[in-house]
Amino acid sequence: MSRKGDIPKELEQHLGELQRKLREKKIPLLIIFEGPSAAGRGRFISALIQLFDSRGYRLITASLLSESVNRIFFQKYWLYTPEAGRIAIYERSYYGELVESGYKKSGMTIRWIKDFEKTLAANGTAILKIYLEISKKEQKKRLKKLEKNKNTRWRVSNEDWKQNKNFADYTDVMDNLISETSTSYAPWLRINANDLKTARRELLEKTAEFMDSLVKEYSAKNANIYKTSDDIKEEKISLDDIDLSLSLSREEYKNRLDGLQEDLLHLELKAYRKRLPVIIVFEGCDAAGKGGAIRRLIQGLDPRGVDVIPVSAPDKMELSHHYLWRFWKNFPKKGHFVIFDRSWYGRVLVERVEGFCDVSDWRRAYDEINEMEYCLYGSGALICKFWLQISPEEQLRRFRERETNEYKKWKITEEDWRNREKWKEYKVAAEEMLYRTNTSYAPWTIVEAESKLFSRIKIISTVVKNLKDKLKN
Amino acid sequence: MSRKGDIPKELEQHLGELQRKLREKKIPLLIIFEGPSAAGRGRFISALIQLFDSRGYRLITASLLSESVNRIFFQKYWLYTPEAGRIAIYERSYYGELVESGYKKSGMTIRWIKDFEKTLAANGTAILKIYLEISKKEQKKRLKKLEKNKNTRWRVSNEDWKQNKNFADYTDVMDNLISETSTSYAPWLRINANDLKTARRELLEKTAEFMDSLVKEYSAKNANIYKTSDDIKEEKISLDDIDLSLSLSREEYKNRLDGLQEDLLHLELKAYRKRLPVIIVFEGCDAAGKGGAIRRLIQGLDPRGVDVIPVSAPDKMELSHHYLWRFWKNFPKKGHFVIFDRSWYGRVLVERVEGFCDVSDWRRAYDEINEMEYCLYGSGALICKFWLQISPEEQLRRFRERETNEYKKWKITEEDWRNREKWKEYKVAAEEMLYRTNTSYAPWTIVEAESKLFSRIKIISTVVKNLKDKLKN
Repeated sequence: MSRKGDIPKELEQHLGELQRKLREKKIPLLIIFEGPSAAGRGRFISALIQLFDSRGYRLITASLLSESVNRIFFQKYWLYTPEAGRIAIYERSYYGELVESGYKKSGMTIRWIKDFEKTLAANGTAILKIYLEISKKEQKKRLKKLEKNKNTRWRVSNEDWKQNKNFADYTDVMDNLISETSTSYAPWLRINANDLKTARRELLEKTAEFMDSLVKEYSAKNANIYKTSDDIKEEKISLDDIDLSLSLSREEYKNRLDGLQEDLLHLELKAYRKRLPVIIVFEGCDAAGKGGAIRRLIQGLDPRGVDVIPVSAPDKMELSHHYLWRFWKNFPKKGHFVIFDRSWYGRVLVERVEGFCDVSDWRRAYDEINEMEYCLYGSGALICKFWLQISPEEQLRRFRERETNEYKKWKITEEDWRNREKWKEYKVAAEEMLYRTNTSYAPWTIVEAESKLFSRIKIISTVVKNLKDKLKN
Repeated sequence: MSRKGDIPKELEQHLGELQRKLREKKIPLLIIFEGPSAAGRGRFISALIQLFDSRGYRLITASLLSESVNRIFFQKYWLYTPEAGRIAIYERSYYGELVESGYKKSGMTIRWIKDFEKTLAANGTAILKIYLEISKKEQKKRLKKLEKNKNTRWRVSNEDWKQNKNFADYTDVMDNLISETSTSYAPWLRINANDLKTARRELLEKTAEFMDSLVKEYSAKNANIYKTSDDIKEEKISLDDIDLSLSLSREEYKNRLDGLQEDLLHLELKAYRKRLPVIIVFEGCDAAGKGGAIRRLIQGLDPRGVDVIPVSAPDKMELSHHYLWRFWKNFPKKGHFVIFDRSWYGRVLVERVEGFCDVSDWRRAYDEINEMEYCLYGSGALICKFWLQISPEEQLRRFRERETNEYKKWKITEEDWRNREKWKEYKVAAEEMLYRTNTSYAPWTIVEAESKLFSRIKIISTVVKNLKDKLKN
């Protein structure tokens, strides 16, 4: 196919301009290409991106995506979602991967796909999905041509020939997937790609149309995609009912700690062998003892299998992405542990209380977070979430100690004192969070943390127990 | 080994404090662990990092490093170098990799190691290398113990037993490597690790000592590591001698372009098959035609094998790393092309002219860049570097055209006009660059770019020729 062809110069220039406008308006756009083997993905993508400024887009190739073996299923797609003002083009996507891995209409992974596109769109990412259609006959012709050239022969696999043989099966599955995932916020565009020339023109025209409407009507807020109810149920969790008098003698602590750390190392090795990804989340007010508990937790572990991710305010790059992006980036490889010192729950805690996001944002976040954790769980991960509760009096005592101790002084900041003034607002937010995100697949453990020794033992023994249960078989 | 042991509390607290001081002073520190199998790396690293704040360090595990197959040899090590104020701990390093891959004393990769440590240190990274020594007998004992437990059995490989069998060979090679790479700026610390308890204490004490001296005497400028001469040789390249009248008719251009693009696609596929990494660099003043040339170059290529990296001012994260870090990050996988629209040569062009770095920084950079390109070349990469030359009159004409053309207006900024005022300074810098970095393994091609058509054809045909030569066999 000639690279020039019959594309009007105006259309080309218009697409270049649209990309720059998307950038100015800070709109993130995800374009997905799907279609049978040899549908001409490379050529069509080339026709599109040569009109864009190279700062404005990123092409996510199948080869790039295939580097993420040993990872939680959706992680790679999250990793490459576009930031504000940029276009990400997926040469292949979760649709192709789903079909190839033997799509069984279980509803399981379709749910993940729907959740993924829904939360992206709700947080302002525009999504366009392009399906390139070719006939069985045309595919056969192209595969044969590829096989003839020794430099392109490697591209044709047995899988491709199998697809051609059972072509109707493939198109049936895709048709079904497309109809199940066609939404107003992530529409499918079907393009007949049997004739490369007309298809290329159609692709450019329709993409320009889509981008035109984006530039005109784009709104970063698509909160209505999620239907969140405003009513707060009565049977809420109350943090006042927690027994903060629970404690442990230092002797008992030492005895139990040694045994638990030994168990933990054993379980870490077993988790590695069984390729279990483990996600541990710590939340709680300042000085609740998160850091100390984490230190005791990892003390006994092989450090090569554990990452601790301290979470503070997002940086500029993180802010230009979906708010969950920076957490997806850090989820563990299979067989590894990741411990979050604060987490995505910041959305419904600090961001809610301090007004760092809209009300609709944190209201929607409970569902978004539950969906994310469902996807992690479904991909085989163990999720342990700890809420460390102390009394305001105990917090004050610990703040004062930090101020006077030479080695702890660095731990206390002005901000800690400011947060303390909003104790009540944080409590309300925490209670709603604990209630709304306490799922069967990712339950919360509330830790009576007034006594540090008690708290640490409860945490480590919970991790040990959860690991044992998960690794039973 | 008990995690508590006989380490004085003061030493532990002191190490925590030292890490925070490193952070305050924005000192990047690289700590490398080496030693035979089962030397106890995991435990020693654990003893160290549990004293650090998790924001302050990153552990680079062997498993993380092993993800970078299909990459240029040194890329993964560059990728994980510490940024200002952070500690990067390499569980294994290029030393281990070199020994395992059959160190032949060729001098080839030792040179890369020396260059790597030298340029890091010269740009302010502190380096500490720790060698854990154990006896043959002790290793055998530990390997046997690991094999007995089904959860640790996978850790012991045939390689480990081979190492134990030929233990003296291993230690000979390492001793030799250590003596060849012991420098004032990247010293080796040998620790007898037969007894875990005393070794742990020694490790912590010596590391504290090293960090203490860093905090006291650190200087981000170690320019004297490189001995750069100030004399500028007579036989310099003169950009005045270039024949800017060279041009091409549109007809001739079209004829040649089609043929060259066809060749190029063929060669791209062949490069992919032969796993050749290709690096193409474009430099030249504003409006010299870099963008247009790049567009014609990639038009014919399969976009899945090509990345275009536009280089502008570094962002905050990039600034906190070695100046070459952001380029190393982007070097191609084997079989892929990466095209740099401006490059690391910014150090000796814009940074020199605008005073964005010290004189000693850009003076040293010629050597640093030559060393880097030597490493890329030695790792099998093809490097094509283009300097696009136009006259100041032609630049003015193109600037004016950009200002009046609706579709080109976005390309011209205030900064372009400002740079133009320094035409002469840029010319001097370009000439010295072309002279000092025109190596046999990464030569410059000077492109007479007054005629865009001539320029594009010269560039594409040079790439085609270089690819053909490299892929001959």
